Amino acid sequence: MKETKIGIIGFGTVGAGVAECLLKNGDAIAARTGVRPVLRRVADLDTVRDRGVKLPPGVLVNDAALILDDPEIDLVVELVGGTGAAREFIKKALAAGKSVVTANKALLSKHGAELAELADKSGADLYFEAAVGGGIPIIKALREGLAGDRIVEVAGILNGTCNYILTRMEKESAAFDGVLKAAQAAGFAEADPGLDIDGIDTAHKAAILASLAFGDWFGAEQVSVEGIRHVALKDIEYAAWLGYRIKLLAILKRAGDEVQLRVHPALIPCRSLLGHVDGVFNAVWVQGEPIGGTLYSGRGAGRDATASAVVADIIDCGLNLACGCRGRVPPLRRSPTFTRIQPMSELRSRYYIRLQVVDRPGVLAQYAGVFRDHNVSIASVTQKEEANPDHPVPLVIVTHEANEADTQAAVREIADLDIVSEYPVLLRIEDLA
Amino acid sequence: MKETKIGIIGFGTVGAGVAECLLKNGDAIAARTGVRPVLRRVADLDTVRDRGVKLPPGVLVNDAALILDDPEIDLVVELVGGTGAAREFIKKALAAGKSVVTANKALLSKHGAELAELADKSGADLYFEAAVGGGIPIIKALREGLAGDRIVEVAGILNGTCNYILTRMEKESAAFDGVLKAAQAAGFAEADPGLDIDGIDTAHKAAILASLAFGDWFGAEQVSVEGIRHVALKDIEYAAWLGYRIKLLAILKRAGDEVQLRVHPALIPCRSLLGHVDGVFNAVWVQGEPIGGTLYSGRGAGRDATASAVVADIIDCGLNLACGCRGRVPPLRRSPTFTRIQPMSELRSRYYIRLQVVDRPGVLAQYAGVFRDHNVSIASVTQKEEANPDHPVPLVIVTHEANEADTQAAVREIADLDIVSEYPVLLRIEDLA
Repeated sequence: MKETKIGIIGFGTVGAGVAECLLKNGDAIAARTGVRPVLRRVADLDTVRDRGVKLPPGVLVNDAALILDDPEIDLVVELVGGTGAAREFIKKALAAGKSVVTANKALLSKHGAELAELADKSGADLYFEAAVGGGIPIIKALREGLAGDRIVEVAGILNGTCNYILTRMEKESAAFDGVLKAAQAAGFAEADPGLDIDGIDTAHKAAILASLAFGDWFGAEQVSVEGIRHVALKDIEYAAWLGYRIKLLAILKRAGDEVQLRVHPALIPCRSLLGHVDGVFNAVWVQGEPIGGTLYSGRGAGRDATASAVVADIIDCGLNLACGCRGRVPPLRRSPTFTRIQPMSELRSRYYIRLQVVDRPGVLAQYAGVFRDHNVSIASVTQKEEANPDHPVPLVIVTHEANEADTQAAVREIADLDIVSEYPVLLRIEDLA
Repeated sequence: MKETKIGIIGFGTVGAGVAECLLKNGDAIAARTGVRPVLRRVADLDTVRDRGVKLPPGVLVNDAALILDDPEIDLVVELVGGTGAAREFIKKALAAGKSVVTANKALLSKHGAELAELADKSGADLYFEAAVGGGIPIIKALREGLAGDRIVEVAGILNGTCNYILTRMEKESAAFDGVLKAAQAAGFAEADPGLDIDGIDTAHKAAILASLAFGDWFGAEQVSVEGIRHVALKDIEYAAWLGYRIKLLAILKRAGDEVQLRVHPALIPCRSLLGHVDGVFNAVWVQGEPIGGTLYSGRGAGRDATASAVVADIIDCGLNLACGCRGRVPPLRRSPTFTRIQPMSELRSRYYIRLQVVDRPGVLAQYAGVFRDHNVSIASVTQKEEANPDHPVPLVIVTHEANEADTQAAVREIADLDIVSEYPVLLRIEDLA
């Protein structure tokens, strides 16, 4: 039986999960695919710490060069992370004609084009299923399963930490800060949570999905990003009352010849399937032609889900090696299907706006006048708490479809009115099926 | 650029959808994959009827032999359906070394092993994404995306007609018969609805998914099947009150060394993602090791969703032809991972049982005694309507985990009691996440 000789660089949590899966399911994989995955080397600077996986003797080494310079190794799995050493490892592996599997979303969303070009030149494979939505085979779906479709929209819950926080806020009627602290204590959020809750991690993944969906390499810096720090429990409650749930979404969408690449919290209908994806689960909704809407859901991160995705890529690369068809599905065959990225200011959307207003005569006329002056048409106004002339009360406005720049300008102007006690919260409404 | 020369046999609804997608998205597919799909022939006995698709001149012919005997054609798409002519077409195509794409679930669940063997011998590809869950790339997920996982359970809503009927019964508080008639009038159910509502179509699909999940070919006749005719509105309402929704499920599950292959209506938790899949949508929940739980949802049938799946297979086969790697992923590499199919009588499950009982003294003692004698332990009893000594009232029992044969025996015995006015309804409870 043919074999794939594998070297893993990075023996952290995911590396250990991949090694364990290969050792445990190796026989089954060989029987099922006809190619046996053989774990030849695992490189990590720390060769001492116990990862709970017993590697065969001699497999663990402390130098990545022992993998990169080993002519026997066909396939390098990069699990170091970051955009420094990882980039060099991958470049070296590709230059040596070795196939590469990586889970590195930060690297791909920054240097994807460069690495893809290298892979093209050397004829080697570059696979990256684990870079987006660990337990969800969404990369394969976009690269292969939907290859016959014109992708119209991708909407994804791509960050488990944010989804966990928003879900707990809702279920426990708890404020953001407390839930974040609890999430950090439970290991569901990092000590420095910015990468997650400011939407940066989601933007990395969004850039990769957008690249596949629209046929060109995008960087995370081309994605408009807003995190979830400004989402208050009050907003989650008002949204629920209006029939919506609030999720941090990556939205990649065609608007005529242009594409929108944006990451922000959004109100989505309670009845939508995406609205039921809770806790650390991730999900991606894809709208294609002719396929219609499809949804993929699973664990977005964690050792086992990510390991499964890496092993699926290892199998794909192994089959390509065994069948002599490397490069069968290149990382991305550039064929842009759009004219430009639509600036956020040109977005048209429905908006949820919460004002904290002093409730006294003439207030309605004031803010309503501002919206009118900016061409923003109000669809509904909700004021649930009792009017109190002394304390500001929340007032929730839902607009008809309006322009983003106009709406932001209206909100800025309203924020300056003395009837408003704090800067309004503005969230976009996405009418997903 | 390399080309895939395609012949489609069967120019019905799906055939027209495939032709349209190839003509419309062909350039994009060529740019994205590096291989151009070329529609060389479409064969159908009826060459006159307008399908709303304008084929290039000379493409439409009235004889499948013009495809099967054409040495230029690399790839045959079988969309005739049924287990007669379709089987001969596929055998002939494979014998001639042509790759085959089919959407024919009935044929695969009956003659899958034979066709796979033929494909193996000739080295040709046999792809069948559209056979299960049209708009859901679940076949590819099982064959490739989860190839590194040990599949523990597959639970699927695989029949749009049944899901549409059950959803409408619930949303409109309507009885089965009326909803079925409305579904027939609206074109969501066949004039002869048995294939759908008796679970046969679901069993075909279940057999195919089970084959991929557990590594051996299964036939639909090896699947225990129960349809939805006996599900009353009352049951849907009681289920909702207990926190469940009723769905027709295909359940393919390991039980120790054995596997369960069953299709029946089941109560699943309202909070589960599968519980929110409504109307004509299909969904498949897969539990694997190490991946955990993943869910795939989309339109299960219809021209466009099915066409998308067929075109994805055409692209895969085209890439294999272009890269000289046909047979890269065979239909099924036999490697059984189980000892036997567990007979339904050995199932252990929790049960929902609705009795229509005459409410008079001593009734409880009677049926409770029967359950006790059969080792079935009652978890809860619900009797919501007012007691009425003259009319039988519904009484809903939820059991703890019990054996199927025992529970069925208890129900048979209770049915014979004179306190019971009609044969009890027994449904299984599946605790999906």
